[in-house]
Amino acid sequence: MIFKKEKVDNKEDYRVINNMRALALDAINKANSGHPGICLGAASILYTLYSKHMMIDLNNPNWFNRDRFVLSAGHGAPIFYSMLYMLGLISLDDIKNLRQIGSITPGHPELVTPLVDMATGPLGQGIASSVGMAIAEKYLSSTYSKSLINHYTYVLCGDGDLMEGVSYEALALASRLKLNKLIILYDNNDITLDGKLSLSSCEDVITRFKALNFNIIVIDGDDVFEIDDAITRCKDSSMPSIIICKTVIGKYSSLEGTNAVHGKPFDKEEISKIKAKLDILDSPFTVSNDAINYFRDSINSRMHYPLREWNRKYENLREEEKDKFDNLFDLNTEYSLGNLKFEYDKLSLRDISGNILNAIAKDFPLLIGGSADVSSSCKTTLKEEKTFDVGCYGGRNINFGIREHAMGAILNGMALSGLRPFGSTFLVFSDYMRPAIRMSSLMNLPVLYIFTHDSITVGEDGATHEPIEQLASLELIPNLYIYRPFDVNELLSCYRDILQNKRPAVLVLPRDNKAISELTKNNKIEDGAYILKKEETDDFVTLLANGEELGLAMGVSDELNALNIDTRIVSIPCMQNFIDKKDFSIIPKENVFGITFGVKDYYYHFTDKVFGMDTFGISAKKEDILNNFEFNVDLIANKIHDFLGDNDE
Amino acid sequence: MIFKKEKVDNKEDYRVINNMRALALDAINKANSGHPGICLGAASILYTLYSKHMMIDLNNPNWFNRDRFVLSAGHGAPIFYSMLYMLGLISLDDIKNLRQIGSITPGHPELVTPLVDMATGPLGQGIASSVGMAIAEKYLSSTYSKSLINHYTYVLCGDGDLMEGVSYEALALASRLKLNKLIILYDNNDITLDGKLSLSSCEDVITRFKALNFNIIVIDGDDVFEIDDAITRCKDSSMPSIIICKTVIGKYSSLEGTNAVHGKPFDKEEISKIKAKLDILDSPFTVSNDAINYFRDSINSRMHYPLREWNRKYENLREEEKDKFDNLFDLNTEYSLGNLKFEYDKLSLRDISGNILNAIAKDFPLLIGGSADVSSSCKTTLKEEKTFDVGCYGGRNINFGIREHAMGAILNGMALSGLRPFGSTFLVFSDYMRPAIRMSSLMNLPVLYIFTHDSITVGEDGATHEPIEQLASLELIPNLYIYRPFDVNELLSCYRDILQNKRPAVLVLPRDNKAISELTKNNKIEDGAYILKKEETDDFVTLLANGEELGLAMGVSDELNALNIDTRIVSIPCMQNFIDKKDFSIIPKENVFGITFGVKDYYYHFTDKVFGMDTFGISAKKEDILNNFEFNVDLIANKIHDFLGDNDE
Repeated sequence: MIFKKEKVDNKEDYRVINNMRALALDAINKANSGHPGICLGAASILYTLYSKHMMIDLNNPNWFNRDRFVLSAGHGAPIFYSMLYMLGLISLDDIKNLRQIGSITPGHPELVTPLVDMATGPLGQGIASSVGMAIAEKYLSSTYSKSLINHYTYVLCGDGDLMEGVSYEALALASRLKLNKLIILYDNNDITLDGKLSLSSCEDVITRFKALNFNIIVIDGDDVFEIDDAITRCKDSSMPSIIICKTVIGKYSSLEGTNAVHGKPFDKEEISKIKAKLDILDSPFTVSNDAINYFRDSINSRMHYPLREWNRKYENLREEEKDKFDNLFDLNTEYSLGNLKFEYDKLSLRDISGNILNAIAKDFPLLIGGSADVSSSCKTTLKEEKTFDVGCYGGRNINFGIREHAMGAILNGMALSGLRPFGSTFLVFSDYMRPAIRMSSLMNLPVLYIFTHDSITVGEDGATHEPIEQLASLELIPNLYIYRPFDVNELLSCYRDILQNKRPAVLVLPRDNKAISELTKNNKIEDGAYILKKEETDDFVTLLANGEELGLAMGVSDELNALNIDTRIVSIPCMQNFIDKKDFSIIPKENVFGITFGVKDYYYHFTDKVFGMDTFGISAKKEDILNNFEFNVDLIANKIHDFLGDNDE
Repeated sequence: MIFKKEKVDNKEDYRVINNMRALALDAINKANSGHPGICLGAASILYTLYSKHMMIDLNNPNWFNRDRFVLSAGHGAPIFYSMLYMLGLISLDDIKNLRQIGSITPGHPELVTPLVDMATGPLGQGIASSVGMAIAEKYLSSTYSKSLINHYTYVLCGDGDLMEGVSYEALALASRLKLNKLIILYDNNDITLDGKLSLSSCEDVITRFKALNFNIIVIDGDDVFEIDDAITRCKDSSMPSIIICKTVIGKYSSLEGTNAVHGKPFDKEEISKIKAKLDILDSPFTVSNDAINYFRDSINSRMHYPLREWNRKYENLREEEKDKFDNLFDLNTEYSLGNLKFEYDKLSLRDISGNILNAIAKDFPLLIGGSADVSSSCKTTLKEEKTFDVGCYGGRNINFGIREHAMGAILNGMALSGLRPFGSTFLVFSDYMRPAIRMSSLMNLPVLYIFTHDSITVGEDGATHEPIEQLASLELIPNLYIYRPFDVNELLSCYRDILQNKRPAVLVLPRDNKAISELTKNNKIEDGAYILKKEETDDFVTLLANGEELGLAMGVSDELNALNIDTRIVSIPCMQNFIDKKDFSIIPKENVFGITFGVKDYYYHFTDKVFGMDTFGISAKKEDILNNFEFNVDLIANKIHDFLGDNDE
């Protein structure tokens, strides 16, 4: 039986909401840029959530067990900022500096503002990442402490979020995993930028979510009582919930209910008219103190007991438990890699990687992840750990399904909640996840992407499965650290560097290379590049390579030596580390040759003489492919020899 | 009332199917690589479709009005090739060369093989592109000739295809547009690479498609009668159809029904056992002639009358109609751009682009496209054309919805059917479409992507909306032609080059640049780059730029001239054209400086001295952003001045 509250309309609630609306409009008007439509339409949802449900500590916005909130419809930032101002978490100057340089009130939410749990803006990312937060809550609650970690994850999304494919992927997984503490507030105004939603969609959203067995509630999205009641009912659900909030975009404006109001600031006259309707003083940036007090009191009085209780439980922890909890997210990586015991004889690099990952996992409970249905190929199963699943939320192997994009976004959500998640697929399919990888980098999240099958050496599966431009194009994403080791020595160093640095990282591995060399023992991953083989004279050529190509470079070097050409080989297992160091002195200016099974651009920073690819790959045996594209020791050595000869003439 | 056929089990059908199965297993065994699971499981679906329904001409596989078929589960290629062999369209040697270099039987289907209507492999792409083919059929049928163009589009997809977000996006649009001649054959074996589908999914697929109001039929996917009957019933549907074919992966093998059979070739012993069960001679690559004849006869006798009828209608066309039909896809671009009349005074480049697009559309009916809900921002609405919609399939404006990825894949399908489609969104969201863009390039399809809001000059929307790495990273995709014009002169040339060349193209435009110059009149887009401003002495510096940055380069040039430093400016509106020419002589070796609002790598081919970005953007006014990142005439000129001074010392 569901307890039904008696409906009471409280004018105080709407006074707060209308103050929030008015302030957002003033801010957008001053910035002369922004999205008033959602600010008018979804204000009540945001207010009701925070006023009556969000478990937060206004004195400590980073309180660990706070409910999480993701504004997936990131263009609604101004109404969120208005609320933060009323809650005393940002200043009126911050509001006035909406969208201005250096402000903590950027056009779309970023991690520079109190209570912003995720940077949002690109549609679909927020709602997908919220699934990751809900996973993290289940895992941490199950693994550490049910009484100290037990929060909800709320997400406010719009029609656009739910049209994006990544939302379907992520919510299908939320359903499968019964993430019942995920509550979606769907701002359903049936309007998108270009017009009515019905121009491009006739999906029956209720039935869509029935297919996922979601808990579904439909309400008037401007009715505080209904919103409040719906959230209350969702909290007891055994499945994830969606509250379909029927709203009117740009409500109270002359353009309400139309796409014209989505992204166009109102002029002062229009704002005056709206404020009149809202019974708000027509004076810019003026907010009712009574409204502010009412709002803050509602949260503080509601949170008083729960916060006291939480703190009591925390204080009652035994000293070592408290210590453990306090240091939950502090990572001692040295010991994690110190105790490694595993076999690597005759194994491919992806097998070895699997062994290392398994070894690390033993001492490092924050490491949890999975694969987009290729864990057996990418070797990323944690063999001694269980599957993360209903009834076993302490499991550490996640079956993401064939949903690469959602996997990336979900990893972001998990990292935002303090975990060190990893996800695997084939390198060529990293294209599917690119928007999520960009968000990892933009938020500087310690997500580890493990991409195997990293070049044309994939072989018979052919052009669609052979990455050509992926390595170079991932390298272009700012703040993304890509590791491409050659053998077990470099791989170990890569893992160490990845663990020690809390940054977005990509580990790129071949399908079946089994190389191992003594020369890689003194690698310097932290420098990004090192001289693998030193020249013997002052007159030498330099070969640049990483990953599987390094074996080819060694062969070329031997061949050149036989032709009396001295060589230096530079291995670059982490290009971004190398670039960060800003010291490229190990690469001379002259006679430098890059070797890559991908696009030549990868080495253009250092040389325009690159043995690489200009086209897509082909379906054939690995050896045939390499020969076809002239990746052949003799050919390359001879070309270098000829080049040097030509230059001497 | 639905006409129900009487069920007759025809052993002849199953003999063909089993021969197809056996041949596919032999081929995979010989290649020692491939996916036997689907070949055993889905053989009956493929056979029944082609034997009893596909409208094809075995003597003319490219017959224009053929039914289209997309093997979205591209790893099923061997069973498709087996069928082609039995139909006489490829040789036994082709079968024996499965997955070998130079063969027309690559690991996943490519456009080198008869009756392959699309290259597939990356899951989700095929099913999404099939929606584009269905759109093209509606459009061409409606615009040209209902009696000559009226085919079905079939797609065979697996569980993986339907998990990919792009499938949801595309099928939501198929539903909205009531593409009733799209028939999905869903090979539902409930197994994926890593195990049971239920590991990662509990979606109720029937309900999922009910939400889209699809015509849904569930059958035994190994029962020829049921498959035949289901397809018959789908042909009369007023909505798109999905036939959920319950199958057993790897049927008849010792591993049937498990993920172990997905991608592992069988050894000879296992194949012998399977052949025994199938009542097939245990001799490799031996196919029953009776089966071959039965299969071919079934198609030829069924197609005899329809082909005669189609040819009769074609022959009965008046001469000019026939001419028009024959030349449907031959494009005379000169006249299309010759008659252009539009205003460009004081307009932003994206507005001008909209005017050109509209002008071209008048004379060029193959041009049809739309936007991922930002047509009003990207200015890609064809103003005098109607919306492509139910009851108006001659409309040329498609509302793709907020579904960038599906838009890309659908454009591919449209191009495969002969159209010259375009689609627009903001450059930063090109990341969402990257897998589809790659397929455009891999298949060399004349798709035009129009990406506006092309840099940090987007401004207030902030980091998530500001492309940094997108331009450079698109440039890395082989065979993709990216155009980034500065002003109306270059833009016109870009459109001309795009139309004249049937290749995948990306047009990149700024949000609000209004520049125009006399210097761009003699641009050479076909060369990719040209000297916009020539130096006056032998001692000069060279500035490289394109798009909006060219304005900055001109300012820097003036400033340098004032400092007595002579300059050359090279504009590079189409990098790939420039690279194709292989003549970079207009760019000297020394004192070259690139200017880009994106990552510096963009110009590393030509110089390592680049004024560009290392980080993500910020939310601020355009001018503040440019100053923040030191894109400022004085600063850049002074830095170049200082650099020259340092080098002189």
